[in-house]
Amino acid sequence: MPANPSALLILHPRLNLYLKPFFLSPSLAFTRTRKFPIPRPPFSRNLSSLSSTAAAQSTGENGSGGGRSGALSSPAITEEVQKIDVNPPKGTRDFPPEEMRLRTWLFRNFREVSRLFGFEEVDFPVLESEALFIRKAGEEIRDQLYCFEDRGNRRVALRPELTPSLARLVIQKGKSVSLPLKWFAVGQCWRYERMTRGRRREHYQWNMDIIGVPEVMAEAELISSIVTFFKRIGITASDVGFKVSSRKVLQEVLRCYSVPESLFGKVCIIIDKIGKIPMDDIKKDLMSAGVSEEAVEELLQVLSIKSLTKLEEILGGAGEAVAELKKLFSLAEKFGYSEWIEFDASIVRGLAYYTGIVFEGFDREGKLRAICGGGRYDRLLSTFGGDDLPACGFGFGDAVIVELLKDRGLLPELSLQVENIVCALDVNLQGAAARVASILREKSQSVELVLESKPLKWVFKRAARINAHKLILVGSSEWQRGMVVVKILSSGEQYEVKLDELE
Amino acid sequence: MPANPSALLILHPRLNLYLKPFFLSPSLAFTRTRKFPIPRPPFSRNLSSLSSTAAAQSTGENGSGGGRSGALSSPAITEEVQKIDVNPPKGTRDFPPEEMRLRTWLFRNFREVSRLFGFEEVDFPVLESEALFIRKAGEEIRDQLYCFEDRGNRRVALRPELTPSLARLVIQKGKSVSLPLKWFAVGQCWRYERMTRGRRREHYQWNMDIIGVPEVMAEAELISSIVTFFKRIGITASDVGFKVSSRKVLQEVLRCYSVPESLFGKVCIIIDKIGKIPMDDIKKDLMSAGVSEEAVEELLQVLSIKSLTKLEEILGGAGEAVAELKKLFSLAEKFGYSEWIEFDASIVRGLAYYTGIVFEGFDREGKLRAICGGGRYDRLLSTFGGDDLPACGFGFGDAVIVELLKDRGLLPELSLQVENIVCALDVNLQGAAARVASILREKSQSVELVLESKPLKWVFKRAARINAHKLILVGSSEWQRGMVVVKILSSGEQYEVKLDELE
Repeated sequence: MPANPSALLILHPRLNLYLKPFFLSPSLAFTRTRKFPIPRPPFSRNLSSLSSTAAAQSTGENGSGGGRSGALSSPAITEEVQKIDVNPPKGTRDFPPEEMRLRTWLFRNFREVSRLFGFEEVDFPVLESEALFIRKAGEEIRDQLYCFEDRGNRRVALRPELTPSLARLVIQKGKSVSLPLKWFAVGQCWRYERMTRGRRREHYQWNMDIIGVPEVMAEAELISSIVTFFKRIGITASDVGFKVSSRKVLQEVLRCYSVPESLFGKVCIIIDKIGKIPMDDIKKDLMSAGVSEEAVEELLQVLSIKSLTKLEEILGGAGEAVAELKKLFSLAEKFGYSEWIEFDASIVRGLAYYTGIVFEGFDREGKLRAICGGGRYDRLLSTFGGDDLPACGFGFGDAVIVELLKDRGLLPELSLQVENIVCALDVNLQGAAARVASILREKSQSVELVLESKPLKWVFKRAARINAHKLILVGSSEWQRGMVVVKILSSGEQYEVKLDELE
Repeated sequence: MPANPSALLILHPRLNLYLKPFFLSPSLAFTRTRKFPIPRPPFSRNLSSLSSTAAAQSTGENGSGGGRSGALSSPAITEEVQKIDVNPPKGTRDFPPEEMRLRTWLFRNFREVSRLFGFEEVDFPVLESEALFIRKAGEEIRDQLYCFEDRGNRRVALRPELTPSLARLVIQKGKSVSLPLKWFAVGQCWRYERMTRGRRREHYQWNMDIIGVPEVMAEAELISSIVTFFKRIGITASDVGFKVSSRKVLQEVLRCYSVPESLFGKVCIIIDKIGKIPMDDIKKDLMSAGVSEEAVEELLQVLSIKSLTKLEEILGGAGEAVAELKKLFSLAEKFGYSEWIEFDASIVRGLAYYTGIVFEGFDREGKLRAICGGGRYDRLLSTFGGDDLPACGFGFGDAVIVELLKDRGLLPELSLQVENIVCALDVNLQGAAARVASILREKSQSVELVLESKPLKWVFKRAARINAHKLILVGSSEWQRGMVVVKILSSGEQYEVKLDELE
């Protein structure tokens, strides 16, 4: 504490309530109190000549005579103190260590599965040109675009999904890449959603995309990778499944009723809302989009089909929709995930650009939103002015899967683990402890170095918190002999080791 | 191709130049031509009753009679085609696979070093409240804030740095966390910079921060971690060094001249511009900030000091600045990185919140901007209305280090590597190939599955591109015996393996 608090107040008139010396907080006294206060001694001020030897002058009167942390006058007080909101902006998240460990675990599984399938990782800017996301089919994603004008008056947007950026990069790369491309990405996406039911405005999304393969093998491979992911994290076919259909089912129905192709995207988006808004509204929306009442009725009946055999009866076996779906189910058997997938004509997905097979992962208890979704989008590139390439992919968010894992009790136990904790028993041996830490780290051992002089009780508590395997104590008598004390924390076993034999 | 192009044109009047069937591009014909065109057969249209068995009707006249990919009418044409800019927005980057491999390698090293030092990873939203970054000391970072108003009329900003978010989280966590915190983050930061000299508007930054340790051991540990990082990636003390000083040097000088503490942050920011703007402007700026001409001259003389002994002569040995710097250099010796660091009084860093030791990493050839920088910021929390805690940290960007690695020829060779490539020799065996791929992947082997029917020549080329170790061929005679052919690509060795003995 300053020797003379009133002097401090005079010299620091703007000091206010927010500027509390940190060691005054009583509840934190144990960990935050300095163990070795260095009283501030007088110091030299002779600055008139750089060559002159300084004469000591006391500076006690300027209020800096106390412990460093308490009374040191600071640049902080030169600014108006503004009490900020300590929470992240609405709809966003912080990742403190425990949340980050879960995210890291999840992303590692995304990446490992992608690599098992021979996919290469890519990424794009989180901030893209708004034009990339503007489509005219009335998608929800369009209405939720997190867009603004930048300082250069450009319309930009935080990406709501990764696929348009992927398409942009594919067009940019043109003929320099050899097809097929098998790319994956794990990136943050933003949607300005109404904050209901735990929905956030940002989430991370794992995407896998195959560019250049027209065959259904591509979709089958994508679903296989998601199944592999589920299995790795302990989710089984009794927890989740995939509903699969093809947009070509709709397309074939619409064609029968001479509904113009130009309405196709819009119709898909309306149909995707089934179950989310009342059926009467769906019908109204379809009719005001220009679909005849008769066609609407037929459409809705076809959409209720849950059997491929039934679909074949209706559409005939010769159309692409049926042929591709049959092929997919046949491949699923070979891949070994038949029990995970089922046909459901009502699946259309909410993005305008899908053209063929569409699928979504769902929890069998029906409690959660779709876990993931994807499909074929053979015509996306041309909407950006590029040459089309057959393409399919999926997006898999980081939110619903975590809810599912929680529900099923499958969240992994992820705790901090540092192999060693190194502590000097004497403040003068802190350098020695640093040396010990360096030696171990050079041998790729992780080390928590105790940076302050702390009681042993504290050190043991810390060791437990970080799940350390070994405690290494640097004491003066051992150090003089070139030794340190190693304590195996699980067994309590304790022995001395030579510095150069540490491992 | 459609059987009747004119019919196609009539039925699809909005079909335009952008909508090119993908397989018409001659240069891509090899990889993009369908090997097994499935001519579109007539299909059923009987939709009037779901229970009736469909009667086949030809749909050839609607223009869909050709190959699927070429003539399939598409939702794409329902939207106006807008030729988008295929480049990422100005100042941002795409990460195609080769760039992503480098980023992944760099980040992995960031993370591995952080873990060696017992640090826990954290992250924060890339979009923060603007208030978090508004400081009044005239920092460059403030002028370059990528800020805007969101749809809810909130002032938000893409984070220009990570430290304020860290401070916010620390305040939020309050007493629930046990000190010291040792946290690291690897996150994207945004600055709306003028695009000169290869500067971008986004970069990734590795941060390590220690919260709760007032001793210089903390700074010494941080520098040790950066040195460890440099060594891991092949950079030596002859390539780079650290310039180290303390803001307390300036503070002590200013105090001698009775310069108000309130000017401290501003003075630091002006001084940080030395070398970037003319010295006369520096002097003018300092004087208009309220520093006397005499003080300015002294200040600039002190800032030219490159020796700690000399500094001690001027300031005296009793002040905190000298004591802490001496302690740091002594610890550097114990940690084993003395040859990496040097005292340089001119180092102040460009962020207002530093209060003590400051350091920056530089390339010894003097060609590049600072590689990294950091220091002590014991007073940041109170500027947000929290209780202060002793704290220090650094930021290490992903741009300059890559330039340095390029200059030194130290960029790693990172190529795609997939262990196996699996290919069916017959289109009917694609399901079998899928089965083989699944078996290998279950054994944690990475597999590129050839998804189309391709000539062997193509497969070998692909195998070379992905650096596959083994090529697995699924042919009908072997398959009937439950076998596949395995070819070791490095040696050309070839043998048959039973399906259940694959590994």
